[in-house]
Amino acid sequence: MTKLYDSLDRIFHPQSVAFVGISISNPFHWTRTFWYSCREFGFQGPLYPVNPSGGELDGCRVYKSLDEIPGNVDYVISTVSAAIAPEIVRNCARKGVKAIHFCTAGFDETGETATAGLQGELTRLAGETGIRIIGPNCMGIYCPSSRLSYGTGFSKEAGNVGFISQSGANSIYVIHEAGWRGVRFSKVVSYGNACDLNECDFLEYLTDDPETSIIALYLEGVSDGRRFLRLIEKAAAKKPVILIKAGYGEAGARATATHTASLAGSDTVWETLCRQFNLIRSKNAEELVDLLVTLTFMPDPGGRNALLIGMGGGTTVLMTDEFERRGFRLPVLPESIRQKLLGFSQLAGNMLRNPIDYSQNMIASDELIRAVDILTDWDEVNFCVGFIRPSQMPPYAWSFMQKWGHSMFTAYRGSRIPLAFICDNAVLPERHTATYSIWQEFVKARIALYYSYPGAAEALRLVVQYNERKQGA
Amino acid sequence: MTKLYDSLDRIFHPQSVAFVGISISNPFHWTRTFWYSCREFGFQGPLYPVNPSGGELDGCRVYKSLDEIPGNVDYVISTVSAAIAPEIVRNCARKGVKAIHFCTAGFDETGETATAGLQGELTRLAGETGIRIIGPNCMGIYCPSSRLSYGTGFSKEAGNVGFISQSGANSIYVIHEAGWRGVRFSKVVSYGNACDLNECDFLEYLTDDPETSIIALYLEGVSDGRRFLRLIEKAAAKKPVILIKAGYGEAGARATATHTASLAGSDTVWETLCRQFNLIRSKNAEELVDLLVTLTFMPDPGGRNALLIGMGGGTTVLMTDEFERRGFRLPVLPESIRQKLLGFSQLAGNMLRNPIDYSQNMIASDELIRAVDILTDWDEVNFCVGFIRPSQMPPYAWSFMQKWGHSMFTAYRGSRIPLAFICDNAVLPERHTATYSIWQEFVKARIALYYSYPGAAEALRLVVQYNERKQGA
Repeated sequence: MTKLYDSLDRIFHPQSVAFVGISISNPFHWTRTFWYSCREFGFQGPLYPVNPSGGELDGCRVYKSLDEIPGNVDYVISTVSAAIAPEIVRNCARKGVKAIHFCTAGFDETGETATAGLQGELTRLAGETGIRIIGPNCMGIYCPSSRLSYGTGFSKEAGNVGFISQSGANSIYVIHEAGWRGVRFSKVVSYGNACDLNECDFLEYLTDDPETSIIALYLEGVSDGRRFLRLIEKAAAKKPVILIKAGYGEAGARATATHTASLAGSDTVWETLCRQFNLIRSKNAEELVDLLVTLTFMPDPGGRNALLIGMGGGTTVLMTDEFERRGFRLPVLPESIRQKLLGFSQLAGNMLRNPIDYSQNMIASDELIRAVDILTDWDEVNFCVGFIRPSQMPPYAWSFMQKWGHSMFTAYRGSRIPLAFICDNAVLPERHTATYSIWQEFVKARIALYYSYPGAAEALRLVVQYNERKQGA
Repeated sequence: MTKLYDSLDRIFHPQSVAFVGISISNPFHWTRTFWYSCREFGFQGPLYPVNPSGGELDGCRVYKSLDEIPGNVDYVISTVSAAIAPEIVRNCARKGVKAIHFCTAGFDETGETATAGLQGELTRLAGETGIRIIGPNCMGIYCPSSRLSYGTGFSKEAGNVGFISQSGANSIYVIHEAGWRGVRFSKVVSYGNACDLNECDFLEYLTDDPETSIIALYLEGVSDGRRFLRLIEKAAAKKPVILIKAGYGEAGARATATHTASLAGSDTVWETLCRQFNLIRSKNAEELVDLLVTLTFMPDPGGRNALLIGMGGGTTVLMTDEFERRGFRLPVLPESIRQKLLGFSQLAGNMLRNPIDYSQNMIASDELIRAVDILTDWDEVNFCVGFIRPSQMPPYAWSFMQKWGHSMFTAYRGSRIPLAFICDNAVLPERHTATYSIWQEFVKARIALYYSYPGAAEALRLVVQYNERKQGA
């Protein structure tokens, strides 16, 4: 492994953490986020709150300064105001700290004279002291294996997705949303203004990281284009890479500048880059989540032949449109399988084609399970997608829908082909709880779950296209 | 008004309804749907259950046949099996019934020899007897003004949207989803196989209907292309028309054939048609709902200059991308307004641009309200979109998000420009209930509410494009 890999791996796995600038008086203050998260996560080493007021926090001694802490401090999470940041770096250097995560905003992204030079000062100090800095203006590290976290409620289970996100809020959204659908992360870093460690460093690290097999990037800009090109080519050759490049137009570029002081760059350049290196380009955070679900649970559907099984004639037609519009094929159900199904099915023959509308007469669960078992054995199809839509059900049929979802789940077990299930997010609270319990069944069984028809079809298209290009290369 | 208009208007407003084929023994049988719906809706005239078994249903006498009913019967909802359908038409003719809605499937859409000729027989009988037929294989009529309905839980309030849907399930989805977001319908008809009354008849009726000012169509095919062309041109000249043409590709066409026995037709033809007559083309049911919300609550945003106010730097960037990618502009906030805001805002200056990231430091509600008041007075923007995303919020900030939504709602009242609000559908049940209460505030105040960033941006783009083309013509 490279020197950079080793040094970043130590940063992702610190032995002790100090929380500099944490509020002692106000338990609801935002500076408590990291403290609560690391404690909830069960961080193994010592956690030191630091605040000039001293005192006690959750049964722990509050140190008035870093110098006061008796043991070593590997990692500092700083929530002090921007003006004090350089001083913190100097204090950290004295203490032998390896890395600092500056959460606070108020640096180059403000574009104001009052703060001019502050961020440059951090960059200079990082170089001078050898301390590595994450940020400023970011959420830092979420790493289940070291129990470092910036969100209470994030999964403690480690996975194979590495996510480099310039934005904190977008990273929280993705960790939550993908997490609720069963995706697990090796490392996530929200790195903001990148005064020292930047997207290139993290990309190099995750490319070499044995715990990471899928890389996702949310970028607002790139600091060193030449190095980025070299690294992204290497990363994409080793692992699937999903990229959101934010800041599409004029106002978007203005927004990235004021958000993380990034230069957005032309969209055409990014489009070309994605084609050249076979990056999976994602348009937004929702799509990124759908893509992570697909890469995690259906990494290679193996082709474009789809089997669609849903409820409702019109729904089935629209679902088919979403897939055909994206270059998928729905092979015609062979007569031999049709006959087998007609042998026991109460369904009208016209519904037993592909797509299959398995809804008529509120059929019995065991019939559906038996039919899906036979259908998923059909060797002409590469994958199967089942789907229901809570809002199309009248109240009296609602419990039937739940049963249907459960039957599909039962039928899915032991299937030969990759499977996905789509169930819309229900609007009415009383229906939402029931919908959630259907989702949970699929998520726990590690089946790709989606909330929208176009969302599922588009993610599958992008992943299948990725695999086709990879094999063509 | 035309003769067709009068005859259809009578069908949409019957004085009495008979439910032929309704199950008397099983309260959960699907044939009860219409009975429950019309009763819940408070249909004013007599409702007659008809079943050879006789007896009583919910305190009403069950008639063994139509002949037994003492009074006139205007409208029959038939759920008898396909084979008996022709006999029902003859019985209805004897009774002087004006129209029959055949719900049951099992006609031309099966493509089977056993049922061949049955649907043709209905067409022939309609011509012979003068009785008009809706269906078969459909859900019939939802008309709040006459209290005719096929869904319990549909809104009793009448509105201005007329929806012609070949599919029953898709129509229920749209009525529910658009209804939960405040859209109200004048008339909805699910007409299935169209053995007699078809999309052309209903289109002609809604074009002339004074209660309908927006027309939506979900079509799987068209029976008389020449007449349809003439009518769609006339309709689009009078009212905005949204069209979903389902059955895009090979399997989609197969699915429409087996669903409603429709011939799908080439997609290019439909695309040309939409351009020529300035129809708003919708790709799927979710988008149709977003479009209905937009046309109902922001019928003409008046231009492409957007003001975006949200929470979170990265979120704001991605939201801007969704709008700029679709040809919207975000004018730069003038220095005069910036200075006004900086006079009282705790927000960092860089967040006060356009888009506006109004999240820092968990600012006070009255500050946000005051800022939004000033911002929506800015004369350079045509409309304003506020947005929050529940999943990007850590648990400790969740209650802040609710407060933020409420403040935006308060600030919106009395605004000069059209407004929209986007709040994702929350995944966790405990958050969902809170999200639902935020939505309800906006919906009740008749503000355009969306659940997704791309969804909102795309619906606004389609509506703005519609208005531009209309004005250009």
